Parts: sequence; C-alpha cells; structure tokens
Amino acid sequence: MAVPVERTPSPRPRPSLDGLAFGRWFSDHMFRVDFDEGKGWHGARVVPYGPIALEPAASALHYGQALFEGLKAFRLADGSARLFRPAAYLARLNRSARRLSMPEIDPALVLEGVKTMLRLDAEWIPSAPGTSLYLRPFMIATEPFLGVRPSRSYALLVIGSPVGNYFSGPPRPLRIWVEAARARAAHGGIGEAKAAANYVASLFAAEEAKARGFDQVLWLDGAQHRDLEEIGTMNVFARIGGTLVTPALEGSILPGVTRDSVIQLCRDQGVRVEERRLPLQELRAAHAAGMLEEVFGTGTAALVAPIGELAAADGTMTLPDLGAASLGARLRDGLAAIQRGEAPDRHGWLERV
Amino acid sequence: MAVPVERTPSPRPRPSLDGLAFGRWFSDHMFRVDFDEGKGWHGARVVPYGPIALEPAASALHYGQALFEGLKAFRLADGSARLFRPAAYLARLNRSARRLSMPEIDPALVLEGVKTMLRLDAEWIPSAPGTSLYLRPFMIATEPFLGVRPSRSYALLVIGSPVGNYFSGPPRPLRIWVEAARARAAHGGIGEAKAAANYVASLFAAEEAKARGFDQVLWLDGAQHRDLEEIGTMNVFARIGGTLVTPALEGSILPGVTRDSVIQLCRDQGVRVEERRLPLQELRAAHAAGMLEEVFGTGTAALVAPIGELAAADGTMTLPDLGAASLGARLRDGLAAIQRGEAPDRHGWLERV
Repeated sequence: MAVPVERTPSPRPRPSLDGLAFGRWFSDHMFRVDFDEGKGWHGARVVPYGPIALEPAASALHYGQALFEGLKAFRLADGSARLFRPAAYLARLNRSARRLSMPEIDPALVLEGVKTMLRLDAEWIPSAPGTSLYLRPFMIATEPFLGVRPSRSYALLVIGSPVGNYFSGPPRPLRIWVEAARARAAHGGIGEAKAAANYVASLFAAEEAKARGFDQVLWLDGAQHRDLEEIGTMNVFARIGGTLVTPALEGSILPGVTRDSVIQLCRDQGVRVEERRLPLQELRAAHAAGMLEEVFGTGTAALVAPIGELAAADGTMTLPDLGAASLGARLRDGLAAIQRGEAPDRHGWLERV
Repeated sequence: MAVPVERTPSPRPRPSLDGLAFGRWFSDHMFRVDFDEGKGWHGARVVPYGPIALEPAASALHYGQALFEGLKAFRLADGSARLFRPAAYLARLNRSARRLSMPEIDPALVLEGVKTMLRLDAEWIPSAPGTSLYLRPFMIATEPFLGVRPSRSYALLVIGSPVGNYFSGPPRPLRIWVEAARARAAHGGIGEAKAAANYVASLFAAEEAKARGFDQVLWLDGAQHRDLEEIGTMNVFARIGGTLVTPALEGSILPGVTRDSVIQLCRDQGVRVEERRLPLQELRAAHAAGMLEEVFGTGTAALVAPIGELAAADGTMTLPDLGAASLGARLRDGLAAIQRGEAPDRHGWLERV
C-alpha cells in the first residue's frame, strides 16, 4: 500500500547533535490519516510538518480523547536505518484506543506511513551514540460536538523528532520522590493506556518534586498508596537479593515496551525476574537489610536510567552508584547495542526502514 | 477593558429551536486570549468562529493539559440577557487550572470577553423555555514540546452553542447503571478539576451502559468502590427520610455550580441537606426500608434530572416517578425561574450582559 506524498517546498536546517534537547525539533514531514464513522480510516498521506486545523469544539480538546505512542528509528553503522519493535508499539496503540473508546487502526498502514515519511526524512535520523529519531504517533478526536460521548471522527498523525538523552546534562543516577498522597491512576481507571489524560494527572506532583531538586516522581497505587506503580515517564525495577522485581501489569501502569525488552534480556541472561506487586515497605526492609542492590527506570525515551535516591516524607533510601557494574548499565548497553545493530537481534526486534 | 472585535463577514443561519440538540451548533463568534511564559495573558479578542491552528506537537494533544467550563446565558421575557453565576464558573476554571499546572486568568477579562462576544451574538441566545446559549470556555496547552512538563504557552477560548435539553426526547426519569469495577478518578487524582482527562476516563463504561439501555453511569469511589461519587455529567443527590444527601467534596468529584445552587435553594426552603460520604449500601438499605424517596442528578447542562432506576450487578433500585411533586422537580423549576428572571434573584446569581 503506497502512501501519497507531498514534499515540503522548504526543508529546514537540522539541529546540532551536541546536547540535543528531547522533543524540541521536528523533522520536515509528518504522516496523517483520518477516520470518519461509516467510512473508516482514509486519506493516508505524508505531508510537510506544520500546524493542523482543528474545530474549536473538537472533542480531543474538551473530553480528552487523545492517545500517543513513542518509538525510535536508529541509524546503523552502515548508514541504513532500523525501527525498534514497531509492532509492539503499534499493538499498544490499538490497546490504548480500545480503552479510550477510539477506533483501532491497521498497524501495517501506520508502519507504511512511517516508512514513507522516513524515506523523505532519512537525514533527520541522527547517527551519534545515544541519539535517534523519536517517532510520535498520536490519535486525536476531531468531531465538533459538546455532548459527552466518543467522537465520530479522528485523526492519526506521526511526527518525528531527533533526540539525545531524555534527561539533560551528563548521565547520573536520578533523584526520585516517592509520592504518597496524590495518585496518577485508579484501579479500574485508564492508567494502562498511553492516554494524554494520564500525563496531565502527573504534572502537579512532578513539578513540586522538581522544585525540590528531584528528577521525577515514583507513584504508588491509587487505592492504598502502598505498592509501587511507575516513575514519571518510566517503569520501575528493583534488584533485591539478586532478583529483579517490577510491578505486575494489573491495569493501572503502562505496559512499557522497554520494560518488556529488559525482562526478555534478563531471561536471556538467566537473571531471575518477578512481575508482582512490590510494596514500598518491602523495598524499605530490603534496603535496611542491605539487600536492595539497585533500582532503575525503563522507558523508550530514557532507555534504562539508574536511580540513586528514593526519597519520601518518612525517609530516604540512598543507593550506591554501581556504574558500569550495575545490571541496569549492562541492560542499557545491551539494549542499545541491539538497537544500533551492534549485537545480534535474537528476537526480531529491528525492522528495516 | 475593551476587547477588540473582528466581525464575521458571513453570519450563519441559526438552528431551529425544535428538538435543539445539545452542543451541535455554534454561534458566529468566539473569544480568544493567549498566554506565553514571561508575557502573561495577551491579545484578547473576539473573532469569527472557525478552526484554530495548532502545532502537531502542541502539548494539549499529547499530555492532556486541557480544561473547560460550561455556563449559560438566558433570554429574559423583556428580551434582555443574563449570565447565570459566571463568577462561580470562572473561579472553578482557575481552581482547575491550578490543579493541572496551567496558568490562572483574570475572571474579569474572561467575563468582558464573553459579554463582548454576546453583544455580537445576541440573537444566538434562544428564548423558548428550557433553552439557553451554552458558553464553553476552555484552556489548552499550545507549546510544541514532547518532554513531559507543563506547557509554557496556552490559549483560552470561549465558544457558544444554543441548546435545549441535554437528554434528548421528552423528559423522563433516567436509567442509571452503577459502575462497580471501573473508576473515574483516584483519591489524590484530578477528579475535582474540570479536566478533559476526567471525561475520556468515563467513556468506556458509559458506552457499555448505554448499549444496555442506560442513560449514564453512577461512579463509586476509586479506592473501595463503596461510596457514591458522581453520575456521568452530573452530581448526585438522594432524598432519604426527608433529608437530602449528596457526596461531600473531598477532591475526587466535580464541585458542581448547580450542585451548590441546589443546596442553597434547599437551605432557603428549610430542606435539610447533608454533604458527606454516601455508601451505596446505605442507599440500598434505605430503599429496602422504603426510606429512599428520590434520587436526582444536577448539572449545568441537565439542570436537575430525576432518576427512575439505579441498576447494579447485584440488583436494581426502582424509584417512583413523583413528577411535579418531587423535590427535584421543585428545585428544577425554582432554579429555572431564577435563571429566566421569573423569580427573585436573592443570591445575586444573575449577571447582566
């Protein structure tokens, strides 16, 4: 299925790769496809990146029917490009759509749109270590109607942004605030969807924590504020007595693709992984007993990020900086090597562009 | 403060008032004002209603920083127009903004913008009983940036839509499904903000209930699924043994302006009102004992809507149709009379346009 193309008449300069800020620059083209009830998805095309026109009453702006994905395209040493696990990201896009009463879309159509766009914007895929072209598919409700019900029209777009590290400055263990009062998602809510709605709910606590020197917030479950859920833009892992533990997918946390990749790499290497409820109290006890070896976050933007400090109102857990010796660093380097074609792709995670 | 005006070159026909659908038609003009960090709110103006241009990376579309309000302008018998409680709605707009890490705005500026718009669109305020011009202020984050943090630019717009009843068809007691598994909002979440994010979270359960013949869903608290929270687009009230009971404002439900108005009218009339937690089990026990006299919902769009049936997986409470004899009907008629200038405005709720 060929996607029609309208080339930009005015290609823009590409940003310098030094200290490339996350999500600030956008490539020259974007993919778009529209949905109308009774007609389905139609009009797939690649067009110049630029403003989109929305009715002021478009329901995405009023009732929050908006979801997104984030996946990456990498430049390999031979100059060719690869997408990392696009099928996993697009499957999650459709799971989010179902939860938010939005229409599913043929992943093959989106993938073809992305590839078409990448052929035009190939030079926007950076090649320096730690860089990639971050691709942001997003779906928004476009029907101009103020009654509360699912929209009958939608648009799906994919934009691209050349990125470096998600966290600015030199790599360092993160300082995380454990949020014990506010909640990101209720059990029975939409926490597992990659919904715009889940992020706005997190901003207030995250800003408060940032003002006090923390990088992100660790959320606890919304019912009892007892079990770990996720960290800002990342899933969370703790290595306790040699076993890696991460919160199970019970509906309130994002089923991270990097989370899944890290679990797979651990299993490949014989590292024991448990997906289960992880009470903060267990973490404290393990820390007190000297059994909490490391904590890290995983996410598409951040990859694997070591945590140096977990601070809460009633005490701070400080974790040693294991540097390159940590499991987190080994997983990060292993994953990065696969993404850049420098290690064997045993699980078929790379897709040629 | 005068708001500059650009008149539409092409006024549109106004819809028929017969069976006027809610939120489908929009008046000729809209108010807009923009915010940039370091500059504040600027550029207030009234312009023709029409599409708005957004950057594809605008953070409202990705991270859900979007809030709204809904208030009404009524046509009085003498042909003049009144806004109902604009100060209360605009105060809530600013409370929502704080919770969602969005900038507050001078209510006087928004009010002046609304009045300027209404002077141009005066003929869009319908006069038939049960009709009004529904005004929808909304604020959206406009900064094109993909990192998760509050946007540094915003737009606030107000659009107007001539409306009749929120529920289509002849007035009738509503059938409500009690949702016992899913949750709308967590304690410690953003449930009390009029956030776009809260509505998308409600759609799936609401659609499921609609498919089975129900009008809306009654939500229970997100932690234990035990206490009543709110109904779809309305706050909920139950009259039990002569006392009106409604869930207290503890952060997870919308502090409805109609809820507040109804409580005030009850106090004026010596009807006892309790704002407290209201377990579903208490409602069941009262119903079994013949003490549950009536249940109704309140909201700006629906005003006061009687409920005829509360159905849950483990049983249905059917409520008698008390018609005009019900407290709900008396409150609805009393409130409507104030809104249309047919009863004294003891609390200064009406604002001249």
